[in-house]
Amino acid sequence: MKFKCDQITLTKALNIVSKAVTNRSTIPILKGILMEVNQEGTLKMIASDHEITIEETIHVNDVEKGTIVVQAKLFSDIIRKLPNAEVTIETENNNVIIKCLNSQFSIIGLPADEFPSVETVQSEQKGIIFSKSILKDMIRKTSFAASVDESKGVLTGILIELRNNSVNLAAIDGYRLAISRKAMVNLEEKDVVISAKIMNEISKILNDASEEDDEVKLYLYNKSAIFIVGNVKVVLRLLDGEFIKYRDVLPKDSNIKVKVSKGDLIESIERASLLSKEGKNNLIKFSIRDNIMTITSKSEEGNVKEEILITKDGEDLEIGFNAKYVLDMLKAIDDEEILMYFTASIKPCLVEPLEGDSFEYLILPVRITGN
Amino acid sequence: MKFKCDQITLTKALNIVSKAVTNRSTIPILKGILMEVNQEGTLKMIASDHEITIEETIHVNDVEKGTIVVQAKLFSDIIRKLPNAEVTIETENNNVIIKCLNSQFSIIGLPADEFPSVETVQSEQKGIIFSKSILKDMIRKTSFAASVDESKGVLTGILIELRNNSVNLAAIDGYRLAISRKAMVNLEEKDVVISAKIMNEISKILNDASEEDDEVKLYLYNKSAIFIVGNVKVVLRLLDGEFIKYRDVLPKDSNIKVKVSKGDLIESIERASLLSKEGKNNLIKFSIRDNIMTITSKSEEGNVKEEILITKDGEDLEIGFNAKYVLDMLKAIDDEEILMYFTASIKPCLVEPLEGDSFEYLILPVRITGN
Repeated sequence: MKFKCDQITLTKALNIVSKAVTNRSTIPILKGILMEVNQEGTLKMIASDHEITIEETIHVNDVEKGTIVVQAKLFSDIIRKLPNAEVTIETENNNVIIKCLNSQFSIIGLPADEFPSVETVQSEQKGIIFSKSILKDMIRKTSFAASVDESKGVLTGILIELRNNSVNLAAIDGYRLAISRKAMVNLEEKDVVISAKIMNEISKILNDASEEDDEVKLYLYNKSAIFIVGNVKVVLRLLDGEFIKYRDVLPKDSNIKVKVSKGDLIESIERASLLSKEGKNNLIKFSIRDNIMTITSKSEEGNVKEEILITKDGEDLEIGFNAKYVLDMLKAIDDEEILMYFTASIKPCLVEPLEGDSFEYLILPVRITGN
Repeated sequence: MKFKCDQITLTKALNIVSKAVTNRSTIPILKGILMEVNQEGTLKMIASDHEITIEETIHVNDVEKGTIVVQAKLFSDIIRKLPNAEVTIETENNNVIIKCLNSQFSIIGLPADEFPSVETVQSEQKGIIFSKSILKDMIRKTSFAASVDESKGVLTGILIELRNNSVNLAAIDGYRLAISRKAMVNLEEKDVVISAKIMNEISKILNDASEEDDEVKLYLYNKSAIFIVGNVKVVLRLLDGEFIKYRDVLPKDSNIKVKVSKGDLIESIERASLLSKEGKNNLIKFSIRDNIMTITSKSEEGNVKEEILITKDGEDLEIGFNAKYVLDMLKAIDDEEILMYFTASIKPCLVEPLEGDSFEYLILPVRITGN
């Protein structure tokens, strides 16, 4: 195997492919990157940790066909630190020789036979096309609400619902629910769940992918999904199990409606949570009276009171929340003003945009005991 | 006690004073900041951990004389997160009430009596005046070479030598020596040693101090030193014990002189050290032959060879170094080209600028065993 390629192209490709390299595996080959050079002048680099496989294909020069697996971290570190010039890489028995100007490395490679094979896109499949920025946005607006507890199975994932006229992403961890919607036409109805952690990796790959590639193609199968952006292909396993019917938990009878500035609310809650560290639930209390929302919290160290002007329809209310959950949600929202719907102090709060249905968030309250 | 002050001024002052707050102390008062408001309209804030005391004085309005100690972290977090507006702070019994627009905090304060007192500048003392940037520079160029092993006493410090026509800073940890010199006139001869850790704190304080204050004044006593920059005063304890007579260890008979590009050397060593992780000494080998310096290293994972063009006077040489020590030194040097003086493979390497004596570095070699 032999090829020449400029250092920058190689470094960028390695940055993307390395995201699939696991640090946890004890199987040496999974800490590696498979390099496959073919006669037509392309280098395919593949990394896989069983849950996610990333493959990137780049054009290279002076090729001699062949394959080898290199240690991902060492190889990436070497390429990244080489001068910005042409790099020559070739195999010599089981060694990989890397040359660039006055630098020469020889590192040990592994034979490619044991490397896992990568699923291919079935030719009859029609992909769903997203703009990169929209997909990143929808992931950011939902992934934080997925459970981080690995024992929670399907709740560690993001539900992707393809519907006739929209794509919906939803995540729920038992304390909060996040929904992001985007109008799209002519989709075949389908539901899949993908690990939120892997969706966040996809988001990073979209960030690192060439700016020229504006679109992502998504192919859904029964047990796997494939994302393709430019010359990068990501294959991942779907999560098994049935997702919570989240529409059933959305409240239908909220009779208190509050319009509030998201920025004011974030700042006030951040201050209030400086004194809410007691216990584990970061309790802050909302007192909603007429056109003022008062947020209070206290600890052994002191107490705090914050007041925010609001517009309210409906009765007054006292309700407690975990400050972290409210902040996670508010920070995922781009809108300057939001609507908060309440029913009672033991019923969840629903948050929506002033107009449209691009997002919905639901947060369970924390019971307030005494004062 | 009462005063009003804008949030930004207060935040900046707290950032500086907080650097003296210890996290290790179990004495609650040392986790605090003493606030002292006097009738003339100034607020003095002081924090101290016995080794270093920082005092900053700012102008405030609407004062009522008084003192209180607040928890440094909580108080700084609160002030930093307040809106950019006027903050009113007043005591109510042992509580400190903080008000700003629609926010109101009440936190517990401690009485000021137990707070350590701060050393004052003796009026007959003549301070040494540094430019801020020169002092920061001299600290950066020497502090890395001080020992980080607390049991090494005076070697954890930086020696400050005041001489008739120069100020010299020196640090030595047994493996390397760093010297930085700056011409200055009319100094009274004096040697003091200050903890390198504290000198690095001083450097950060100089960074954070108002840009209008270009000068630092240094007052040296027998057991302490005082740095004054603008309205900030830093008092610190000197380290006891006699510093190594570092001039005695500088080689006098180096007969191999190499001129090399610092940038090329850094990049080559960084690459070579990717394969020098075996053992703990990061061994890299320099082969100096004619006008080429070859740097090699190897590990179980592979090997690397780097070549750099040099200008040499004297014989060829093979010598080994700990890559980290060479890199620490090279990164502290601003010059593009440097001179390296060698004697033999078991003798230290001396590094100097092409001209002048603004710095000198000495590094002990690592013995090379076989190939």
